[in-house]
Amino acid sequence: MATTTGPRLEDIQEARARLEGVARTTPVYGTETLSERTGRELLLKAENLQRTGSFKIRGAVNKIATLSGKERRAGVVAASAGNHGQAVAWAAREAGVKATVYMPQDAPMAKVEPTKTYGARAELVGATFEDALTAAFEHGERTGATFVHPYEDEQVIAGQGTIGLELAEQVPQAETVVIPVGGGGLASGIALALRAVKPELRIVGVQAGLQGPTIADGIAVKHVGEHTGGILDSVLDDLISVSDDEICQAIVLLLERSKLVVEGAGAVAVAALLSDKAGGEGPAVAILSGGNIDPTVLISVMRHGLTSAGRYLVVRSRLHDRPGELIKLLSLVARERANVVSVDHHREGMDVPVYESEVELTLAMRDEHHCAVLLETLRSLGYQVERLR
Amino acid sequence: MATTTGPRLEDIQEARARLEGVARTTPVYGTETLSERTGRELLLKAENLQRTGSFKIRGAVNKIATLSGKERRAGVVAASAGNHGQAVAWAAREAGVKATVYMPQDAPMAKVEPTKTYGARAELVGATFEDALTAAFEHGERTGATFVHPYEDEQVIAGQGTIGLELAEQVPQAETVVIPVGGGGLASGIALALRAVKPELRIVGVQAGLQGPTIADGIAVKHVGEHTGGILDSVLDDLISVSDDEICQAIVLLLERSKLVVEGAGAVAVAALLSDKAGGEGPAVAILSGGNIDPTVLISVMRHGLTSAGRYLVVRSRLHDRPGELIKLLSLVARERANVVSVDHHREGMDVPVYESEVELTLAMRDEHHCAVLLETLRSLGYQVERLR
Repeated sequence: MATTTGPRLEDIQEARARLEGVARTTPVYGTETLSERTGRELLLKAENLQRTGSFKIRGAVNKIATLSGKERRAGVVAASAGNHGQAVAWAAREAGVKATVYMPQDAPMAKVEPTKTYGARAELVGATFEDALTAAFEHGERTGATFVHPYEDEQVIAGQGTIGLELAEQVPQAETVVIPVGGGGLASGIALALRAVKPELRIVGVQAGLQGPTIADGIAVKHVGEHTGGILDSVLDDLISVSDDEICQAIVLLLERSKLVVEGAGAVAVAALLSDKAGGEGPAVAILSGGNIDPTVLISVMRHGLTSAGRYLVVRSRLHDRPGELIKLLSLVARERANVVSVDHHREGMDVPVYESEVELTLAMRDEHHCAVLLETLRSLGYQVERLR
Repeated sequence: MATTTGPRLEDIQEARARLEGVARTTPVYGTETLSERTGRELLLKAENLQRTGSFKIRGAVNKIATLSGKERRAGVVAASAGNHGQAVAWAAREAGVKATVYMPQDAPMAKVEPTKTYGARAELVGATFEDALTAAFEHGERTGATFVHPYEDEQVIAGQGTIGLELAEQVPQAETVVIPVGGGGLASGIALALRAVKPELRIVGVQAGLQGPTIADGIAVKHVGEHTGGILDSVLDDLISVSDDEICQAIVLLLERSKLVVEGAGAVAVAALLSDKAGGEGPAVAILSGGNIDPTVLISVMRHGLTSAGRYLVVRSRLHDRPGELIKLLSLVARERANVVSVDHHREGMDVPVYESEVELTLAMRDEHHCAVLLETLRSLGYQVERLR
């Protein structure tokens, strides 16, 4: 790993042969709605439909396939709060190799459970990823198990690169390819493959906005790797970032329009194209890198995205404190065909005058126009209405 | 439509040729988790990834392709609160034919908006589907537009039957095929195709439980059609039904494990297999007929499904009414690594003694075991805890 040239085209072609019949050749879908919104043909490479729900098995399968007999018998070990752990567990099982995966204690259920299902030993240790990493290294030294790095590894990068070879065949018309960047293994592999077979292509990497926790937890590493960083410097045309808000909207659009469940990190490429940050012209491919989002998180994301789109309306109003007033308000809301999600009705609070009560309604709406019409109707009937969201 | 024999194999093969390059040949996915749960190989035919998000374009495209030049110029009209309307709109646009779609006023946004996007005139009339149907008939008589029936039509049935031909090639190992039944067009078409090419196959139809509103709104018609009913009588091995609860669980599993968004009607086949109602042995194919579920509905379904699976816990407890008690409780909950979704804290109510307050917590949990551990811990520390959900 001293050079920054990374795996050669032949390495990636060899990886592809090893993945044959093990990993899926994932489909590419066109999407009319998203193409309209971005003003260019937008194609989705659905690695969320890959086995284990992410591209990561490509690298893991290729890595394990290149171990010696002795190394195979000693097993493999990984540290991962997510997709890489599942991928190593799955790839090891397929190859008949023992795997141990270390994760922080708070790793989401959607990722812990499958790792166990795939037959790996899952060890929940410490509060941070660094704790898990330390434990995995120690495990490797103690047992002789091979540590499978999520991205700083030629065989792993070559495995991820097989996506590039598939794309070159599936979407020969593509002029821009947009790839999520976390540690940089996925983008390095795909870009190396594509630079070799379609040198004229525009290739853009996308990171999640870097401050604080992000919905794109799958790519929330502090930096790209040293090796992958060197590769990316030489093969990417641009490296951009998107906000959590943009990512949430992309997740909801993919869910609603393309019927695909995509995790935060898996949606950054679409977010970049929707916000017109990816540049270039002509048909663009967005890599949907994975779909492993915890359903409880997905609910929050959907609520957030739907509220941004005017599909939820939260309003506060005042009622005279006498029987029937709440019914009267709710009847008006029903007449305007808004659907009540929740009602919070109370009488106390600094701002609520005596003889009045305060009501907070969360409503499911058709769109922003429907919200505006309802607010106007309520105000014209004398309600003091404050829009909270 | 006097016979109950339905379209012949040649009709379905002709339909397939007409759909070539227009409809997608949708993929079939294996699913490890669902195969384990059902104890047999379970394969998913992903018609939710079909253009417009459901199988319905197959029938609509085939119907419109067989119109005369004069009929094409007069346009088409349909009544549909859902997928059929979108499909007719889309198929008409692809064929350069004018379409009008009548729907009840409360048709979900997820279905109204795309119909308009596809360039059809969308008319929202009346409260029920029957109102929309009457308006569509009248429109046809007034303008000469051809009424496209959602299932009582040989060309429509032949179009849906193309799924059967694809399946015979994609999953030759299948021994059972499970198909959602609403009006019966989908099941008639697929079963006729499969009976012709794989006569030994077990073919099962699945309806949504018949009382009251159902999450499977796409198949919530009162009866299968007269014509399709006759076909189904002769080609199905069994016709069963599933409950909304079973459907919700299937939706959540497909979302979480297969990364596929499926609507209620689209999940009934999986629900039937999970609840061991479909019968037969060996590899089974479930037809995921569509993915057009309103995101606000999907949120409710997910909450319901996750609560059933112990991933949400709602508990009520009492606190001494003095500063710091709520913090103490929340600290305990955090220490047990449960994630707070909502807190409802109040002092009034018939059952709340003076000097105590009542708190209701909604918590995101790992699983049912995690719920049990938390409840036990709280009780051992002296909290009176009532589990509400």
